[in-house]
Amino acid sequence: MPLPASTHAKGGENPVWVYSFGPGCPTPPLDRNLLGGKGKGEAEMTAMGLPVPPGFIVTTEACVHYKYNRLSFPKGLVEQVEACLVTLEKQMGCNFGDVENPLLISVRSGARVSMPGMMETVLDVGLNDKSVLGLAKKLSNERAAYDSYRRFIAMYSNVVSGVNSAAYEDALKACRKREGVQFDIGLSTNALKELCQEFKHIHNQQTGQEFPQEPRDQLFRAIKGVFHSWDCDKARAYRRFHGFPDDWGTAVVVMAMVFGNRGDDSGTGVGFTRDPATGEHHFYGEYLVNAQGEDVVAGIRTPHPINKMQALITGSNLPSLEETMPEIYQQLEEVGRILEQHYHDMQDVEFTIDNGKLYMLQTRTGKRTGFAAVKIAFDMLREGLIDEREAVKHVDAHQVTQLLTPIFDMRDKVMASGKLATRGLNAGPGAASGAAVFSSEKAVEYQKQGKPCVLMREETSPEDFAGMVAARGILTARGGATSHAAVVARGLGRPCVCGCGDLVFDHAKHEVRIGSNGMVLKEGEPVSIDGTTGQVFFCSLQTKPSEIIQVLIDKTKRPEESELFQQFKTIMDIADKYRRLEVRANADTPQDAAIARSLGAQGIGLVRTEHMFMDKKRLMDVRAMFFSDSEDDRKAAANRLMPYQKEDFLGIFRAMHGLTVTIRLLDPPRHEFLPHTEDEQKALAAHMGTTLERVKQIGESITEANPMLGHRGCRLGIALPYVTEMQTRAIIEAAVEVSKEGSEVLPEIMVPLVATKKELEHQKGLIDKTAQDVFKKMGKEVPYKVGTMIELPRAALQAGQIAEFADFFSFGTNDLTQCTYGISRDDAGQFLPLYVEGVFFESTHSNMQVFDFEPFQTLDQDGVGELMKIARERGRRTNPHLHLGICGEHGGEGRSVKFCHEIGLDYCSCSPFRVPVARLAAAQAAVEGQSKK
Amino acid sequence: MPLPASTHAKGGENPVWVYSFGPGCPTPPLDRNLLGGKGKGEAEMTAMGLPVPPGFIVTTEACVHYKYNRLSFPKGLVEQVEACLVTLEKQMGCNFGDVENPLLISVRSGARVSMPGMMETVLDVGLNDKSVLGLAKKLSNERAAYDSYRRFIAMYSNVVSGVNSAAYEDALKACRKREGVQFDIGLSTNALKELCQEFKHIHNQQTGQEFPQEPRDQLFRAIKGVFHSWDCDKARAYRRFHGFPDDWGTAVVVMAMVFGNRGDDSGTGVGFTRDPATGEHHFYGEYLVNAQGEDVVAGIRTPHPINKMQALITGSNLPSLEETMPEIYQQLEEVGRILEQHYHDMQDVEFTIDNGKLYMLQTRTGKRTGFAAVKIAFDMLREGLIDEREAVKHVDAHQVTQLLTPIFDMRDKVMASGKLATRGLNAGPGAASGAAVFSSEKAVEYQKQGKPCVLMREETSPEDFAGMVAARGILTARGGATSHAAVVARGLGRPCVCGCGDLVFDHAKHEVRIGSNGMVLKEGEPVSIDGTTGQVFFCSLQTKPSEIIQVLIDKTKRPEESELFQQFKTIMDIADKYRRLEVRANADTPQDAAIARSLGAQGIGLVRTEHMFMDKKRLMDVRAMFFSDSEDDRKAAANRLMPYQKEDFLGIFRAMHGLTVTIRLLDPPRHEFLPHTEDEQKALAAHMGTTLERVKQIGESITEANPMLGHRGCRLGIALPYVTEMQTRAIIEAAVEVSKEGSEVLPEIMVPLVATKKELEHQKGLIDKTAQDVFKKMGKEVPYKVGTMIELPRAALQAGQIAEFADFFSFGTNDLTQCTYGISRDDAGQFLPLYVEGVFFESTHSNMQVFDFEPFQTLDQDGVGELMKIARERGRRTNPHLHLGICGEHGGEGRSVKFCHEIGLDYCSCSPFRVPVARLAAAQAAVEGQSKK
Repeated sequence: MPLPASTHAKGGENPVWVYSFGPGCPTPPLDRNLLGGKGKGEAEMTAMGLPVPPGFIVTTEACVHYKYNRLSFPKGLVEQVEACLVTLEKQMGCNFGDVENPLLISVRSGARVSMPGMMETVLDVGLNDKSVLGLAKKLSNERAAYDSYRRFIAMYSNVVSGVNSAAYEDALKACRKREGVQFDIGLSTNALKELCQEFKHIHNQQTGQEFPQEPRDQLFRAIKGVFHSWDCDKARAYRRFHGFPDDWGTAVVVMAMVFGNRGDDSGTGVGFTRDPATGEHHFYGEYLVNAQGEDVVAGIRTPHPINKMQALITGSNLPSLEETMPEIYQQLEEVGRILEQHYHDMQDVEFTIDNGKLYMLQTRTGKRTGFAAVKIAFDMLREGLIDEREAVKHVDAHQVTQLLTPIFDMRDKVMASGKLATRGLNAGPGAASGAAVFSSEKAVEYQKQGKPCVLMREETSPEDFAGMVAARGILTARGGATSHAAVVARGLGRPCVCGCGDLVFDHAKHEVRIGSNGMVLKEGEPVSIDGTTGQVFFCSLQTKPSEIIQVLIDKTKRPEESELFQQFKTIMDIADKYRRLEVRANADTPQDAAIARSLGAQGIGLVRTEHMFMDKKRLMDVRAMFFSDSEDDRKAAANRLMPYQKEDFLGIFRAMHGLTVTIRLLDPPRHEFLPHTEDEQKALAAHMGTTLERVKQIGESITEANPMLGHRGCRLGIALPYVTEMQTRAIIEAAVEVSKEGSEVLPEIMVPLVATKKELEHQKGLIDKTAQDVFKKMGKEVPYKVGTMIELPRAALQAGQIAEFADFFSFGTNDLTQCTYGISRDDAGQFLPLYVEGVFFESTHSNMQVFDFEPFQTLDQDGVGELMKIARERGRRTNPHLHLGICGEHGGEGRSVKFCHEIGLDYCSCSPFRVPVARLAAAQAAVEGQSKK
Repeated sequence: MPLPASTHAKGGENPVWVYSFGPGCPTPPLDRNLLGGKGKGEAEMTAMGLPVPPGFIVTTEACVHYKYNRLSFPKGLVEQVEACLVTLEKQMGCNFGDVENPLLISVRSGARVSMPGMMETVLDVGLNDKSVLGLAKKLSNERAAYDSYRRFIAMYSNVVSGVNSAAYEDALKACRKREGVQFDIGLSTNALKELCQEFKHIHNQQTGQEFPQEPRDQLFRAIKGVFHSWDCDKARAYRRFHGFPDDWGTAVVVMAMVFGNRGDDSGTGVGFTRDPATGEHHFYGEYLVNAQGEDVVAGIRTPHPINKMQALITGSNLPSLEETMPEIYQQLEEVGRILEQHYHDMQDVEFTIDNGKLYMLQTRTGKRTGFAAVKIAFDMLREGLIDEREAVKHVDAHQVTQLLTPIFDMRDKVMASGKLATRGLNAGPGAASGAAVFSSEKAVEYQKQGKPCVLMREETSPEDFAGMVAARGILTARGGATSHAAVVARGLGRPCVCGCGDLVFDHAKHEVRIGSNGMVLKEGEPVSIDGTTGQVFFCSLQTKPSEIIQVLIDKTKRPEESELFQQFKTIMDIADKYRRLEVRANADTPQDAAIARSLGAQGIGLVRTEHMFMDKKRLMDVRAMFFSDSEDDRKAAANRLMPYQKEDFLGIFRAMHGLTVTIRLLDPPRHEFLPHTEDEQKALAAHMGTTLERVKQIGESITEANPMLGHRGCRLGIALPYVTEMQTRAIIEAAVEVSKEGSEVLPEIMVPLVATKKELEHQKGLIDKTAQDVFKKMGKEVPYKVGTMIELPRAALQAGQIAEFADFFSFGTNDLTQCTYGISRDDAGQFLPLYVEGVFFESTHSNMQVFDFEPFQTLDQDGVGELMKIARERGRRTNPHLHLGICGEHGGEGRSVKFCHEIGLDYCSCSPFRVPVARLAAAQAAVEGQSKK
């Protein structure tokens, strides 16, 4: 069983598994991957001279070793812990396990990234029936000693022995009742003593073992407990969500205990150096007097505001730390300032006040909303705390979508919580509310009547396009984050919740039922979906367009009226200044093109012409073009469609004057255009002058077992050359016409699904011939380019040959991922979640993630990425001027955009509302690339 | 527009487009690709001193230039032809265009490979109204002159001007009637004179132009006519069938005319130096007295046998050449001997006798049946004419299947020709006759009653397996040469005709109809299919097993009784001596394994375990294993299946004792196992203890949009680990048991559809654990290996990582081709035939083949092959002992087997009946590889 790569432990004879920090200790290597974020923070704050209790850190590598070696400590670890313990005893002037003057320690988790609340911690390790007496003496506070002991027993039981903490909570509740007090803080010393007995009893009963009295035993088992918590369900789920791999492991931070539960001059709190929700520049936080550890977060007592501003925000009338301990508060603010100066970022801190003395227990970069991220970057830049490059890196690229999507009114949302019906995949960010409709026809009907609606479908197909346009949001029972519904929804900027497996449609009754809770919704009743959280409410919730959208698109707000817009614009302008990668948008209509341009798109990287075919007015001729028995009839239908296609392109070219527009020729298999109902089939038979039976026959004859791998893309353009001809004519005529109007027009025609040079050669021949015809007829030429999608592995390998006929390549990473992995996006739901979630792995008796990430969301750099690099290299060798871009879903995903930057693509193209994400990610890649040099 | 590579024409300033041959001329470069087979033969025979009329050759490169340059001659060609004409005039002592003593020439096609009858020829070029008089004087035979002239007019009209030859045939027929004669030869001089007038009239009427009198005009237009014939429909179709590319082009051979139509001491004939049907060593051929050119082949008169043996074979009582012109015949036999000595192969020759003098007009390697190929190689080896290496190369690898498959009685077949209903793809060689059945159940029923039947289906699925086993042959309306029906049929050695698009099933009426001709066949009526030709007869035809099969498998004949077997064995033994590549078979049953071993398989390279699941007895438990709602029920079903799986493996291990057996774990998506009829669904519901509704729900929930890219392969083994465990247990228990019986057993467990290292790591962990359990339980260990299919592009790219956990890789080139091209085998029928057939290409105004070959039949060396090379290199870098093989359909295709040899694979695996093909192809690759060095 090979170990994951390890930088420190591998090389030497005597690997270091544990590092001390504190007075007299050298600063450990400040490597977050090794010490975890918490450990690094402690060591760093110590080095900065801030008040931190001393301690030592068991490295993440020790955890990884433990995980992959049948849960055993690496050789040398125990001895190293013992040595560090001796150092700690010297620093603290008391001994671990001493009965008279006991050293107590906390044992806390801390991975390389913050995973708040996901892993475990044990406080007050070292207490037992004897040392609790010593502690009472030492603190001169018997109550505090027993309070600590009961906390320790409960935490240890839960973390190390896996005892459900509910038993302890119940006992605590009963005790409070007996004593007639509302809060734990009201419990008497005697009550706490009894509670300790009771807690030990619970432990012994549930585990069948005596509660351990040996401090060293407690310590090593607590370390193991923390290691285990790395692989607990919630931690795993959190990593899945964020795309963190399972083999990072957690460090364990062991520190001397300080006591916030020592009396009224003691306490514990958490805070942010700025407001994490809004980004406002004031200390933000809460604290509790006479409390320990998790009390604040656990919500056992109502915490106090940290300052008067906080009291204002939360409407609290409890006395703030600023008021009750003004000196400590000043010190805390000063620590915050020092930390921001040091880290150049907003910090999230934990602290304890022990007998009037402040101790910092943790610092880490504070999580924040997209709104706060933008404001903080903007402010810190102004304050001179960070430079432009840092400002660009300050905002998580994906968070900017928060600034663009409509949101529910928070209060309504909370109040509606009884109406929370179910959850699905948060596939398209934003919030939508409206009447539930179960068909696209219905959606269009509602739209005509001016009634907002949410389209609910088992899944969507291209025929639902009109309905998706008409609806405020889309909810599906099947399909993943890159299903048709999700892709189209994001393209349209529609909020979307996908793959809500719990939804059961009863079309006969015109209702849906939630399988798990039996809630029922009839068609027409209000429903609200939050595409940012995946929540589905069976009620109506208010939404409003975001401020940025009001300024940029709706123009209902002037730029100077919006501070948020000014901040956003400042950051995006800086991003544009630093990025090298061009950002285009995928857009199929003039409206979308205009939106994309407003959001900063420098061109359209993908126009999907087939979406235009779905219009009711055109569908009959589209079908006649594909399905008529005689070629003449098919050509005639194509000719009838031409003016409509041209109209589309006219609008897009006008909207994008001066910028490139890349138009993909027909791509999907023909059966997506088949009529489904018998009425539609009859209408088509009449339109085509044939029988219903024949229409059905045709439908059967072109139905495919694996449509993704079927007769589509350029295979259609080659078999039905008149379609390519018609589309080219529409594009080039529109281009010449807009050019005659005086606008610059830069059309690129893109041939899909090419596997061999000859396919492109064939289509390019047809395109060039048609373009020349149009130029001659219209008496004017416009420059145009012909290129291809690289979306099949063979195309990537043959890129050198294909480039002979291509001005540009656009990587279609959706299809390329499908074929490289042999996984259908549509069907991946059967196993991909399991693969990413992890499965039982026989060799280690532990959970194993089969895929580290969802390859349709995040580009697979090893496989798909290698093909992209091969294609780039071979294509550019043939044609050094070959322009390279990406137009798959990955074009709007941060990590993937960075990869595109790194491998030297020229542009990425994504849904209009992802354009700011891509701009920022591209800038971050450029800045990181420079700092690497 | 780039030109195809050209070796001669490209380099110099003055490329050579035309080469002279004959007395006084230097021998041209004897390059078949440049001169064509015919041209090379003429030039070579001339150099050997054989009697050949002089002439010159327009190269294939000139044709390619013409084709790709809007049908224009290359610069310099006309001048070079003129110069060669001058040389020819000197050689012949008469002038082209001379009225008194005219030089006449033939203008004939000749590509680098023989394409018999596919392209065009014009004889007697140079004749006109005046020179015909000169010719009459020169030949002292007015009749022969006019006979030549009328032939010339008709041929020229047809080849150059595209006039339908039927008009000439009609006129000729009318003339014969007028004259009251049966054959052309009976026509008087005057009648022929009139015919010439009439023919010219037809020409002028149909073309609107005067028949050209200018010989040079005739010559250059005839050359163009031959160039054009390269791209005529039948030539294209022929190339498609044989997989020859369109850009080879044809050479044009221009020769001085000799006259077989000069009287009774003249004639023309064709022959083979040995019998092309049986391989017997005697001259084989036919001739006609007083005739020219195509008369023999055209069947206008009954040709005479060339010798007494031929008379015997054909039962002809016409006098033979051996009898009428014994000296000429002796000379011809001698020429044959010289040619065989020179070419080391049987030759196909054309000759003309002009006034008692023999002229050789053509020699080429003679086409022959598989039977003849084996006998000729065997004989020539004995005769010392060829060595072992040549003997191996003498037999086309695919032809050996002819020796293995049952055949129709020839006479019956001819007589049944009125019953020829339609044709399909010749997907599985051999002949089958029986009652038509339209369902697998029916096939099984017929088999039980001992009635032979042919299974006719729209297409087949794994559920048809039992029916396919029960039937004598398989006929489908849909699917290509690698469809399920074709693959399974070849695996079973069943004759198969696929993709018979003309078949219309009417299941209500229990009949099929042929769309094109309205023929109807009711279920139960006799049908015969010839899987070698693709023919379908609506009648019964006798078949018999091949002699080789009688010896090797049926054991109804002793080896020493069969000469054919001795010959076959000799050749195959030599092949085995020279080849490096190991040959294994794909076999799913002990019976198939035994057959494969008899045919020389050195192991089983692929056992598809899922075929075993389709057995009626097991299907219920298979379904319960997949579809039960509770995991316990699923596991219980798996455990019930285990003994059956083990039984299968016991049989295979016993049959293959001492040889490797590679077993692939479950591969296909689960919905292939779903019950389809409501009765079956009800039965399953009862078996699973659930409702019919639930069974339907489950069915719907696992149905996939693109099953090829869905939840299958190791994705099942990971999601349902108990299936992997059950299969491993069955394999290892069987292996230990057979090992205990004293046989050597070498199991290899193969994990399908791996895309990432971790998938294989996971499955290997499970396999190893299970194997250790079994070893412990049974008290004995056997060596086993674990490896994976490389059938996804990503697996090939990640081979270096995957090889960490693999003892072997087996390239699954079916799936690898699908994903590399993004083409579903099942759906390729919509466009792949068109791609291979060719489409109109705008840039050159000519036909363009989009794919040079069918990638599911012949391995794509550029794309798929590169991935294989990448996988080989990266895999072996990680694990130098990695064993490499192929088990896709390509493993039994000659060119693909050679590629596998060249890239250094260790073995190929194919259907049992393809094993001799692979053995021979592997030997040929080895011999060719050595001769290259």
